[in-house]
Amino acid sequence: MKLIYSGKTKDVYENDDHYVLKFKDDVTGENGVFDPGANSVGLTMEGAGKAGLRLTVFFFEKLKEAGIPTHYIDADIEQAEMSVRPASVFGEGLEVICRYRAVGSFLRRYGKYAKEGQPLDAFVEVTLKDDERQDPPISADALEMLGILDHEEYSRLKELTQNISGVVRDELAKKDIELYDIKLEFGRLDDGTIVLIDEISGGNMRAYQNDDYMEPLELEQMMLSSK
Amino acid sequence: MKLIYSGKTKDVYENDDHYVLKFKDDVTGENGVFDPGANSVGLTMEGAGKAGLRLTVFFFEKLKEAGIPTHYIDADIEQAEMSVRPASVFGEGLEVICRYRAVGSFLRRYGKYAKEGQPLDAFVEVTLKDDERQDPPISADALEMLGILDHEEYSRLKELTQNISGVVRDELAKKDIELYDIKLEFGRLDDGTIVLIDEISGGNMRAYQNDDYMEPLELEQMMLSSK
Repeated sequence: MKLIYSGKTKDVYENDDHYVLKFKDDVTGENGVFDPGANSVGLTMEGAGKAGLRLTVFFFEKLKEAGIPTHYIDADIEQAEMSVRPASVFGEGLEVICRYRAVGSFLRRYGKYAKEGQPLDAFVEVTLKDDERQDPPISADALEMLGILDHEEYSRLKELTQNISGVVRDELAKKDIELYDIKLEFGRLDDGTIVLIDEISGGNMRAYQNDDYMEPLELEQMMLSSK
Repeated sequence: MKLIYSGKTKDVYENDDHYVLKFKDDVTGENGVFDPGANSVGLTMEGAGKAGLRLTVFFFEKLKEAGIPTHYIDADIEQAEMSVRPASVFGEGLEVICRYRAVGSFLRRYGKYAKEGQPLDAFVEVTLKDDERQDPPISADALEMLGILDHEEYSRLKELTQNISGVVRDELAKKDIELYDIKLEFGRLDDGTIVLIDEISGGNMRAYQNDDYMEPLELEQMMLSSK
């Protein structure tokens, strides 16, 4: 397998006609504290890679049942590897965020009009993946003007984001866990189909139980326990 | 007249059934350098208030001819005062920016995808007036969710912004001056009509002649000279 990209929490390899994502034990955060919105690797937690992959597989299988397209093919948990269909990202990569409560960067930007923890109605926003510029938010108009995504694709992205986030939220609710927000990534397959890519794990969402924030590993254990 | 608001570059008084804007000689900027995007008063220039009002009246009269609604009634240049119809702002105030070239905060946010000075097709974006949070950009979806502006009003705001900016751009072009970007404010009259409010002067636009940036006073002199 040929390494084609080394990310903060994952490496990507090319293997014949598909890609392989290798999940690392690194998680994003600052000063040893996990933060799904952070741009740097804050700490290494043993088993984080496999746990993240297990939860990702869990959700990608649920999405398959719901008829929502993803890049997922299959996974080898022991190797912390997931095989996926090759997809190209929009521009140099976007993050699509779905929010059910006002926390994080939403609150930092719009705190004049929103209270901390205020319910939000599956609010979707897009940010550019750009560490140097702190992942700036970008509008549908700007995405189209800069040639990253046209309005029709934006509508599709928003619809997929709300559907996928709804599936995740419902699964969490079954374990009495509340989803506050989630960060997704999308790509285009060779035929132009827009699919969910990357992962869905504790590392890209904020989840709470009884008003307590759940660390990614804790969330993964709770979601995958048979109780 | 009763002072009802004291702004960075203007005071607002109530006088019977209308408001009076008193233009000050203060302009926004930092460390003595003018910057239309700055949030603080950077310097005081004698005559800046009257010059800004003169240019504002010039543009508001042009907009009237073009059938574009504004809050303008009339002005007393010597007193640096403009009488306007009372209008309420959206939320605690928005700024609507129209961009013809990629400079300023647009470039700071989207520099990964845009080159400095690159032409932009009358691109419109909205920011919240919130000094504490550095006037964050906000999407149509977020404006509606936070109860500031609905989608229909957003479309109207965008249309008005492009029309008004086009009038300003054309007037500048007659003097061989190029408009790079402009910042507008809007409000609702008692009957709900959305109108342009505040001012249109050198202080809320970036204008260039032969690749040289024009200071507000220089721009105002040039625009109002009979040559």
